[in-house]
Amino acid sequence: MESLMNAAEEQQPPSALADPWSLKPESSKNQKPKGVGGFVLVHAGAGYHSESKAKEYKHVCKRACQRAVDRLKAGALAVEAVAAALVELEDSPFTNAGMGSNLNLSGEIECDASIMDGKSLHFGAVGAISGIKNPVLVANRLLSEAQKGKLSAGRIPPCFLVGRGAHDWAVGHGIPPCPSEKMATKFSLSAYKRNKRKMELAEKMETGHKQAKKRRQSSENENGSGCLDTVGAIVVDLEGNVAAAVSSGGLAMKHAGRVGQAAHYGCGCWAENACNMNPYSTAVSTSGSPFLVGEDRVLGGVIVLRCCRCVEAQPSKHIQGILVEFLWSHTTESMCVGYMSAQDSKAKTHISRLPPGTVAGQCLAIEGGVCRLTGTVE
Amino acid sequence: MESLMNAAEEQQPPSALADPWSLKPESSKNQKPKGVGGFVLVHAGAGYHSESKAKEYKHVCKRACQRAVDRLKAGALAVEAVAAALVELEDSPFTNAGMGSNLNLSGEIECDASIMDGKSLHFGAVGAISGIKNPVLVANRLLSEAQKGKLSAGRIPPCFLVGRGAHDWAVGHGIPPCPSEKMATKFSLSAYKRNKRKMELAEKMETGHKQAKKRRQSSENENGSGCLDTVGAIVVDLEGNVAAAVSSGGLAMKHAGRVGQAAHYGCGCWAENACNMNPYSTAVSTSGSPFLVGEDRVLGGVIVLRCCRCVEAQPSKHIQGILVEFLWSHTTESMCVGYMSAQDSKAKTHISRLPPGTVAGQCLAIEGGVCRLTGTVE
Repeated sequence: MESLMNAAEEQQPPSALADPWSLKPESSKNQKPKGVGGFVLVHAGAGYHSESKAKEYKHVCKRACQRAVDRLKAGALAVEAVAAALVELEDSPFTNAGMGSNLNLSGEIECDASIMDGKSLHFGAVGAISGIKNPVLVANRLLSEAQKGKLSAGRIPPCFLVGRGAHDWAVGHGIPPCPSEKMATKFSLSAYKRNKRKMELAEKMETGHKQAKKRRQSSENENGSGCLDTVGAIVVDLEGNVAAAVSSGGLAMKHAGRVGQAAHYGCGCWAENACNMNPYSTAVSTSGSPFLVGEDRVLGGVIVLRCCRCVEAQPSKHIQGILVEFLWSHTTESMCVGYMSAQDSKAKTHISRLPPGTVAGQCLAIEGGVCRLTGTVE
Repeated sequence: MESLMNAAEEQQPPSALADPWSLKPESSKNQKPKGVGGFVLVHAGAGYHSESKAKEYKHVCKRACQRAVDRLKAGALAVEAVAAALVELEDSPFTNAGMGSNLNLSGEIECDASIMDGKSLHFGAVGAISGIKNPVLVANRLLSEAQKGKLSAGRIPPCFLVGRGAHDWAVGHGIPPCPSEKMATKFSLSAYKRNKRKMELAEKMETGHKQAKKRRQSSENENGSGCLDTVGAIVVDLEGNVAAAVSSGGLAMKHAGRVGQAAHYGCGCWAENACNMNPYSTAVSTSGSPFLVGEDRVLGGVIVLRCCRCVEAQPSKHIQGILVEFLWSHTTESMCVGYMSAQDSKAKTHISRLPPGTVAGQCLAIEGGVCRLTGTVE
C-alpha cells in the first residue's frame, strides 16, 4: 500500500501509472490472476465526527475492512465482500444505518440500501424498509435472486422493493425480522426527542408568520450536517470485479415513506467492470442527496476507486496485477474512511476534515492513494 | 403544425431549423413572448394496442392533449399542464396507470409516478402508492411543496415517498383517498385471475425440475409486452419552460412494494430548461425498465421534445417563437401517441407500429415532427 497523496497529486496520476496499461484486458481474458485477494475502501459517514467519538468511527471502519478482506481471502467475489463490509457498518450503533439509524417523524426507523455488481451490472435496492437489522442483505438478496433469471411464468424479478412489501419479501426469503425497538439506540431515541422538541418550538415561534415567510426563514438546517450520514463501501477482487454498496437510515425527522439517494439506481452507488471499450473498472459510493436543487450548502461525500490490469516490470515472472487508484471527497465537516488490501495485516483508517476556517457545504476536501494488487498468472 | 417526418429525416433537421438559432436565449431574457400557449406530446403506453381498442387509446391521448392545452391557454406553466395531461391518462381504464392499473401478486394496485419541472429542476415522485386515484398529483404536490423551501426546524421536504407513508402524506395534504376496489376494472381483475392461473400452472409444471433449470427455462415473458405499459407526457409552454411526467401501474403480478422506473429520478422522466451553456430545452418521458440487464428483448418506449427560441423571417414584426422538435420511439409492437399545440383546434393522434415481420424488442421505430410556437415580443 502506498501512502496517501494529496488532492493536487490525485489529479495527475503518479508516474507508476504511466506504463502498466500496456496489457489490455481483452488480451488477458485467459490470464486471470490466480489466487484470492483484493482491496476495500469504506466510509462510516460524511457529516461531523467529534474527536470524542473518532476512535469508535475508526474502529468500525477497521472492522468493516477486515470483514471484506476475510471474505476476499476465502475466495468471495467483490459483491459478497462489499456486502460483508456493509453489515459491519450497519451493525455499529454509531452509524446512521441499520442499528442506531435516525428515527423518522413517526418515531420509526426506515432504512434505504443498495448494492451493485460491476460484473453483471445487476443492482438491488430497498427503500423505507423497517424491522430488518441489515437492509444491505435484502438488497444483496434481491441482486442475487435477479441473477438467477426469471420467476415462474416469465415474471421479471424485482430489483427495488420498498416499505412493507420489502420487509415481507425479505422475511419470505429467510432474512429474520428484527423488532424495531431493538434497532433504536439510547442515542437515536434521545436525538429524536431533542429534534421533536426543537420542531415543536420552531413551529410555535413561527405561528403568526405567513406560511411562505415561515418556510423561507427557517432555511438553516438545525438538524446539523450529521443528519445526512450514510455508510458505504467499494471493493475490487483479484479477478478485477468491482462492487459498491451504500446504506442509510435517512434524514432525521423525515416523513414516513421517504426514500433517499441511497436506494436510488445510479445515485447511491455504482460499479462497472472494465470492458472492451473501457480498460478501467470503477466503483463509487456516495453520501448526500442529488435532489437538493437550490440548496446553498450541498453536503455530501463520496468514495471512488478505479482500477485496471497491469504487468510487473519483470514480465518473465508471469506476475500480473491490478493497479487500484482510490479517493474520498466530502463537503461535510468530516468523513471517516478505512481501506485495506488483502495483502495488508490491518486496515488504515482516517478522519478527513475540511481545512480550519472553511465552511461545510462551500468547500471540498479530496484525498486518495494508489495500491497494487498482485497475482500469479496461470 | 408541420407534418410527420420519418426516422431518417429526424436525424437531419429540416432546413427550416437552420437559421432560427441566431437569437441566443441570453440576449432574449427580457424579450419573452407575451401571451399563453405551448405544445404537448403524450403517450398512452408502449406495448401492444389491438386494432379493436385503437379508438379508445387515441381518444384518451386526444383528451389528455386537450387538457394540457386548456391549462396552457389559461396561463398555466408547463409543469401544471403536464400534470393535467397525466390525470386524464391515469383516469382512463384502458391505460396501466391510476384507474385500471395492473394488479400485483397480492391482488392490489400499487402505482409509481414522477414529474419534473425543467425551470427549477425540482422533481417529485411516488412509488408503490395505493388508494390514490391520481398518483401524479401526489408527485406534483411533492414537487410544489419542495419549491416552497424548508419545513419547520430546517427539515428538508421529501421529494420521493413510497408505500403507506406516501398515501398518508397525500391524504394529509388534502388529496382524497380512493378505495382500492374502485381503482380495479373488470379488465384488470380478469387479467389478474388469468395471470394467477398461468403462474400456478407454470409452477406446477416446473415441479420436479431443478430450481436453477426452472428459472432459465421460463425465460419467455408470458405476460406479454403489454405489462410494461406506462403513460407519459411532455410539455413546453410559451415562456420556453419544459416539464415531463410519467405514471405506471407497474408490471402485472409484481411483488408488493416493487418500484419501477416511473418513480426513479433520472429514469422515468427528465426536463431541463435551456441555460447559458445550452440553447435547447429538453423533456423526455420513458416507458420500460433500465434494470433489465441481460434481457434478450428490451421492451420500451420514449417521447422526447427539444426546443429553442427562434425569430420569424421578418424580425421587424417583433414576432418571436419557439421551435419544437419532437419524436417518439419504441421497441414494443406499438405505441399510441397524441400531440397538440395551443394553436391547433384539436390533437393529432397516432398508433405507431413496428414494421411487419419485425420482432418486438429487437427492432426500433422512430417518428417525429416539428412545430413552431409564436408569440409577440413586448
